[in-house]
Amino acid sequence: MSAPIAPLPVVDHQRVVFADGLTLDCGQTIAPLVVAYRTYGTLNAAKSNAILICHALTGDQYVAELHPVTGKGGWWQTIIGPGKPLDTERYFLICANVLGGCMGSTGPRDEMTDSAGCGLGRPWGTDFPNVTIRDMVRAQHRLVTSLGIGRLLAVIGGSMGGMQVLEWAATFPQTVYAAAPIAAASYHSAQNIAFHEVGRAAIHSDPDWQGGRYWEEGRIPAKGLAVARMVAHITYLSEAALSRKFGRRLRGAAALTLLEDVFEVESYLRHQGSTFVRRFDANSYLTITRAMDYFDLAAEHDGDLAAAFRGTRTRFFVASFSTDWLFPTSESRALVRALNKAAANVSFVEITSDKGHDAFLLDEPDFHHALGGFLAGCADRLGI
Amino acid sequence: MSAPIAPLPVVDHQRVVFADGLTLDCGQTIAPLVVAYRTYGTLNAAKSNAILICHALTGDQYVAELHPVTGKGGWWQTIIGPGKPLDTERYFLICANVLGGCMGSTGPRDEMTDSAGCGLGRPWGTDFPNVTIRDMVRAQHRLVTSLGIGRLLAVIGGSMGGMQVLEWAATFPQTVYAAAPIAAASYHSAQNIAFHEVGRAAIHSDPDWQGGRYWEEGRIPAKGLAVARMVAHITYLSEAALSRKFGRRLRGAAALTLLEDVFEVESYLRHQGSTFVRRFDANSYLTITRAMDYFDLAAEHDGDLAAAFRGTRTRFFVASFSTDWLFPTSESRALVRALNKAAANVSFVEITSDKGHDAFLLDEPDFHHALGGFLAGCADRLGI
Repeated sequence: MSAPIAPLPVVDHQRVVFADGLTLDCGQTIAPLVVAYRTYGTLNAAKSNAILICHALTGDQYVAELHPVTGKGGWWQTIIGPGKPLDTERYFLICANVLGGCMGSTGPRDEMTDSAGCGLGRPWGTDFPNVTIRDMVRAQHRLVTSLGIGRLLAVIGGSMGGMQVLEWAATFPQTVYAAAPIAAASYHSAQNIAFHEVGRAAIHSDPDWQGGRYWEEGRIPAKGLAVARMVAHITYLSEAALSRKFGRRLRGAAALTLLEDVFEVESYLRHQGSTFVRRFDANSYLTITRAMDYFDLAAEHDGDLAAAFRGTRTRFFVASFSTDWLFPTSESRALVRALNKAAANVSFVEITSDKGHDAFLLDEPDFHHALGGFLAGCADRLGI
Repeated sequence: MSAPIAPLPVVDHQRVVFADGLTLDCGQTIAPLVVAYRTYGTLNAAKSNAILICHALTGDQYVAELHPVTGKGGWWQTIIGPGKPLDTERYFLICANVLGGCMGSTGPRDEMTDSAGCGLGRPWGTDFPNVTIRDMVRAQHRLVTSLGIGRLLAVIGGSMGGMQVLEWAATFPQTVYAAAPIAAASYHSAQNIAFHEVGRAAIHSDPDWQGGRYWEEGRIPAKGLAVARMVAHITYLSEAALSRKFGRRLRGAAALTLLEDVFEVESYLRHQGSTFVRRFDANSYLTITRAMDYFDLAAEHDGDLAAAFRGTRTRFFVASFSTDWLFPTSESRALVRALNKAAANVSFVEITSDKGHDAFLLDEPDFHHALGGFLAGCADRLGI
């Protein structure tokens, strides 16, 4: 067994509670439904300047401020602020922790409830129902409605955030004036599912996993979760980014033993893995990766992706990155073809970058310029 | 802890013992040195028709016959036999288990010895010295010499086998008439090292690992080794191969719970992982993956890959597969450029295949035709 690690800290997240709960794609109703969220900027009188940001697998609602657990800066703060592409002097930004997450929205760490919403005295754990990307979007829709917003200026997000953007545009087309799916795809590929499965197997293999009831034992499956993070992290980087940063530099020629870190890439990955387990919950990781794996927008429309967007009036901005092999440009192009088939208003850009999938989170001036221009154009058109 | 799994069966492998041992790149001498091997076909009177086959990471010397542990057919039997590219009526084929392996050649499961070759009464385990690809090749060279063979008609191998082929050509150029590195590269990339590191972390994280002394506890780190195999297996397949075989077919729409196999790819990978642990030793996996990670032929020649082949008279046949992303065509092209710079006799072919890295093991007629033609041409030239 590994040494006990303190459970995730309890944080008093900003939240809204829907006592009537939410009925999921699987048919089960979760009640109450809690949606934790953060906002940046000011909602105008017409309530027309709201942009919803959808976060990725291990992201959360702390987009542009210090994270309450890690104390690090927001995950997209490079792009948010006065004068930046997501200009907080012009737009009202909203980001909600996804359903199934571990930063305040209803998820596996919460107290399990029965169909009448009565607490059962123990956390959901692995009894938490399977959620889909569409379930996440429905929960966000409840939040947006509760804020009195009838139409979002835009919904934007990268990676799993981009999946949510597409689901928003397909499920609530009247609510989405503009949609920006970035470094995303309309389905999760077999290879991506397989990498997720490795991560899940690593968590399940950790004896501290305890069949998902680790909290009750005062443990967390830290080693398994770290291995899961490590394999995922590789998929976020390009070979060029890995080589440039860590290459083949040895950490010390004398250290040639079987158990020590030799290549810098190894110690880097180990560090990434161990940091991650202090801020993310294993059951949430399992829940959310499953939601990504199930995502297949065409399958929700009898195999016809264009049908998901039939008659849409939403303006689309699709962006991919040239060295992203997790969500390659070919998948964005397939999405654009379907949007074209639906006669949608769509622009597409492939950003040249050697940073891989992670590029959407990093300082990529061409990407920021393109996204900022798209949003400003939409806002201009609406007189915002 | 996982349930105890029987240790690997003891098999009486064909072998040769070198009592004086082998001095490794790390400076340590291992004595005695045991090299387990298999041969197919007949060595001719001139001893001029021998082809050495070098196996990949988890391969072994049972190339073209039933495996003594799994009972399955040989890993390259599609290409070996009368009238096949590796024609056993024309050539004498040799394959040795690599140094550090677990199928009879000296490795971590053997009894640890002191510098005088005296047994210390316990297995090497993680005290087994770091070996390099060049050390593996030196051990094979001892075997070849002991068989009375002064020059090999060819050395061939895929993946890590191709690394050995290149090291053979660089270290023993007079002994190698022809060299065929297939689906290989002159160095291991940062991304490949990172995937190996995930596998090693999974093994180290398994409580049955016991710091590498699992045999003494009557255990094997089966779960960690299975996860390692799973992640490696993904890298051997192309996205197309994964999609075609396992795609997004669900195993049963009712099975929507967190712990069950849902996607067929998941159950497939789990099966692959669990089969593997019954035939492969975890300490050998650590030892051999390290050897691959250290491999950088240019670095052994002051950063100049062409210098590794300066003045060579060996004929080279370099082959890659179009959807191999573990050892992509670009790395074979870089090798060919270095060989050209060394004015070597080299032919190169990229085989169009959608099977990924694994293609070198599968029924790929274009590849078999090209390799068979190359070998036959060399044999013709030597009057064999």
